[in-house]
Amino acid sequence: MKIAFLGPQASFTQLATAQLFPDEELLPQANILDCFHAVENGEVDKAVVPLENSIEGTVSMTLDYLYKTPEIKIEAEAVMPIAHHLMVHPDCKIEDIEKIYSHPQALAQSFHFLDDHFKEVTKQDFSSTAAAAKHVSENVDRNLAAVANQFAANLYGLKIIHRNIQDFEQNHTRFIVISKKKQAYHHEKLNILGEKSGLLITLPEDHAGGLHQVLSVFAWRKMNLSKIESRTLKTGLGNYFFFINVVGKWEPVLHENALEELKALDADVDFLGNYKEYLLES
Amino acid sequence: MKIAFLGPQASFTQLATAQLFPDEELLPQANILDCFHAVENGEVDKAVVPLENSIEGTVSMTLDYLYKTPEIKIEAEAVMPIAHHLMVHPDCKIEDIEKIYSHPQALAQSFHFLDDHFKEVTKQDFSSTAAAAKHVSENVDRNLAAVANQFAANLYGLKIIHRNIQDFEQNHTRFIVISKKKQAYHHEKLNILGEKSGLLITLPEDHAGGLHQVLSVFAWRKMNLSKIESRTLKTGLGNYFFFINVVGKWEPVLHENALEELKALDADVDFLGNYKEYLLES
Repeated sequence: MKIAFLGPQASFTQLATAQLFPDEELLPQANILDCFHAVENGEVDKAVVPLENSIEGTVSMTLDYLYKTPEIKIEAEAVMPIAHHLMVHPDCKIEDIEKIYSHPQALAQSFHFLDDHFKEVTKQDFSSTAAAAKHVSENVDRNLAAVANQFAANLYGLKIIHRNIQDFEQNHTRFIVISKKKQAYHHEKLNILGEKSGLLITLPEDHAGGLHQVLSVFAWRKMNLSKIESRTLKTGLGNYFFFINVVGKWEPVLHENALEELKALDADVDFLGNYKEYLLES
Repeated sequence: MKIAFLGPQASFTQLATAQLFPDEELLPQANILDCFHAVENGEVDKAVVPLENSIEGTVSMTLDYLYKTPEIKIEAEAVMPIAHHLMVHPDCKIEDIEKIYSHPQALAQSFHFLDDHFKEVTKQDFSSTAAAAKHVSENVDRNLAAVANQFAANLYGLKIIHRNIQDFEQNHTRFIVISKKKQAYHHEKLNILGEKSGLLITLPEDHAGGLHQVLSVFAWRKMNLSKIESRTLKTGLGNYFFFINVVGKWEPVLHENALEELKALDADVDFLGNYKEYLLES
């Protein structure tokens, strides 16, 4: 099977994809749009893209493309703790590090460590943490360091000199597996955190309490929501759609009645699937 | 006055900041965290950061830092249409362009144009659209192009050869002006789109219908919501806070009663301010 993922090589998304699909052919894509295109055109079977809090992708694009391509559904969600490591070439003189490279958000997330230990060292933005690691590996004559993940250290032969330098222990990124086939993704060896459904709901017009009415459909059924996000439609400034996650297993009568009730409210509903949430390693 | 903004020079945020604060000293910051720090430490009076759909900042970080720094409030919101232009050095031979540089999301947003007109030309990721423009201006001997904004073209002396190459006309980025002082921002010459309030609401526990209860507070008062977004708390996987925009002017009795009712539900409420929404030029 061919699996597209948001690259470059050794990106956080590849770290997630390698755990979700250890035996498949993984194809890096330049951006989130290319991941959706690859699935849409049938060049790949599935793709893995960030859904929440990613360092190297504007995740609102994932919601927008899910909205624009109704034939693409969600097969699984995966949560990965973000771990940043400081790495150098094995020949580097650590006391002489002259520059630290990384993606601006990774530098921001490691702010306190870098400020405490490398206050005087120049920090330099790169387009991704992986590209920063690659750059360090290719410039051995200078004493450079990168903030990147374990995968990048392995791929580019760098030595980790400080592990877990991120400011918050509980920083997670969420990814989704997308495809056109609505197959249920299953992986025996990964930890399952739970089960949920994903829905995209467009309200007929922008009226007070419309969202409240929509949420009533779930509230009186005691269906819990774990995520809700409004996104502006491209048609104008005042129109919205909502991405909602409903917690729990698919129960045909309960869930189908809820979908029917949403349609009775004139809401346009794209049911993205009922799928499992997996916990990955950082 | 000193105003921090998410850099680098000629970023989309600078384009917004220059319109919001035409006569002030503007200080570029490497990332969103640094913008918050500069305000928190009193190094600047205000900062401008992206709130929604930004190309060059992971906007979920803005919500997280608003949550983490309750002393920082919102003074204004500004909406800017995103316009991407293809630009080259004036000496460039357009028919021989060998590489096109930009931020991966800007390349993605210009996909159809670039695919139609420059299918065979290599696209190369850069950490920002502005850095891509700078790179093109510094390598005159090669035939390079960048996808960036008008400001970058002016700053780096590049010639725009195709205007508005983005795929969707209605692509906007939203910015907010943040400060510790809760002053009302006012600009006479900019178009005002409306007025709104920003709230961060944390629910006491993750129970079914909790969000529905919170939204009831607004619904029965016919207060319209224009944005809602749930964010995971850093304390664990199952806890959330919500960012909500309530449309309209501040009406003391109505709004204060709503805030009281939210507190009666044991919700923790951070009122970020009532502020105007401005329309900027691209």
